[in-house]
Amino acid sequence: MTRVVVDVMLKTEISDPQGQAVLSALTKLGHQGVQAVRQGKRFELEVTDPVDEAAIRQIADTLLANPVIEDFSVHVQT
Amino acid sequence: MTRVVVDVMLKTEISDPQGQAVLSALTKLGHQGVQAVRQGKRFELEVTDPVDEAAIRQIADTLLANPVIEDFSVHVQT
Repeated sequence: MTRVVVDVMLKTEISDPQGQAVLSALTKLGHQGVQAVRQGKRFELEVTDPVDEAAIRQIADTLLANPVIEDFSVHVQT
Repeated sequence: MTRVVVDVMLKTEISDPQGQAVLSALTKLGHQGVQAVRQGKRFELEVTDPVDEAAIRQIADTLLANPVIEDFSVHVQT
C-alpha cells in the first residue's frame, strides 16, 4: 500500500475568500509577517501497489479538483 | 518572502465523512485500487523573511487547526 497525496489549490487568478479571511484574522491578531494566505484541499489516498500514477492524475483531474478554477499536484510518498 | 505550507488533517481516530464520500464515489466509478481517502486542508502562507517558525506553529495550532480533532504539519519551502 502506498500513500499518494493530491494537493488542490485555487488557480492564482481566482479570488480566495477563505484565504483572505484567514489573512485578515492574522493581521488583526498582530501577525504582521504573514503577507498572503491561500487555502486549498489536501487528499491522502491509500493505493494498492503498484501505483498507477496516470490513473491517480485522472482521478484528481475529474473528481478531486475542478480544473476550471483549481490546479492540483500529485505526490507519491515513498 | 518565503512560502510556508501548513497541512491540516483530521486525527486518524476521527471519522472523516468527506474522505469516505470520495472513497465511495471512486469505488462506484471502478477505481478499485484506492483503499482509503482522508481529506484535509492545505494553507499556503507568504511570510516575510526571516521566517519565525515558532510563530507559524503557534498560528497553525491556534487558528488554522483545531487541535482537539486535527493534526497539522508545517513545511518551510526553500
